[in-house]
Amino acid sequence: MSNLFDLPEPSANEVFEPLIENDQILIERIISRGQTTPVGEWYDQARDEWVVLLQGEARIGYEDGHEVSLHPGDYLLIPAHQKHRVAYTSTEPPCVWLAIHAAFTL
Amino acid sequence: MSNLFDLPEPSANEVFEPLIENDQILIERIISRGQTTPVGEWYDQARDEWVVLLQGEARIGYEDGHEVSLHPGDYLLIPAHQKHRVAYTSTEPPCVWLAIHAAFTL
Repeated sequence: MSNLFDLPEPSANEVFEPLIENDQILIERIISRGQTTPVGEWYDQARDEWVVLLQGEARIGYEDGHEVSLHPGDYLLIPAHQKHRVAYTSTEPPCVWLAIHAAFTL
Repeated sequence: MSNLFDLPEPSANEVFEPLIENDQILIERIISRGQTTPVGEWYDQARDEWVVLLQGEARIGYEDGHEVSLHPGDYLLIPAHQKHRVAYTSTEPPCVWLAIHAAFTL
């Protein structure tokens, strides 16, 4: 058995770790320690994503300019091709995200 | 946006709440406040389940007699038809689980 809060040593980049991955689904843990998406860059994903922030504090920004603040337990659905960026992630504690990317509609 | 740790009023039964549900997947939050599976009864599920305990303390028992203790962040895969039961769940704090049931192999 593994634990989502057992974190690897800090690294300069965000850490993306697949927990379950096949042609239907990717369940991954993401660890962010202050990293953000560069201003002007966007995630534009081909697949729907359901994501929950489990630890830390974060903000996600959308193309229309609005941002949402996330606290532990907050979850949201990011439909395919909804452009978004990670505007803020806390360093202490690091952000622990659980994300589900599906090959089908969520 | 919703939060996994915003809990409804306590109820006598476990609370199963679908967050995403379609013919491919069920993502659900489960809240347990001391409830367990009656001794001698088993979950024998047709679908693979990936489950993480996010709050509380719990134990899951298997047909061969072994039990695993879960702490917040612990996750495990329960293959279809692996008989199991919930042997213990804490009341304070309540257990908050996130479970993913898939129509395909996880």
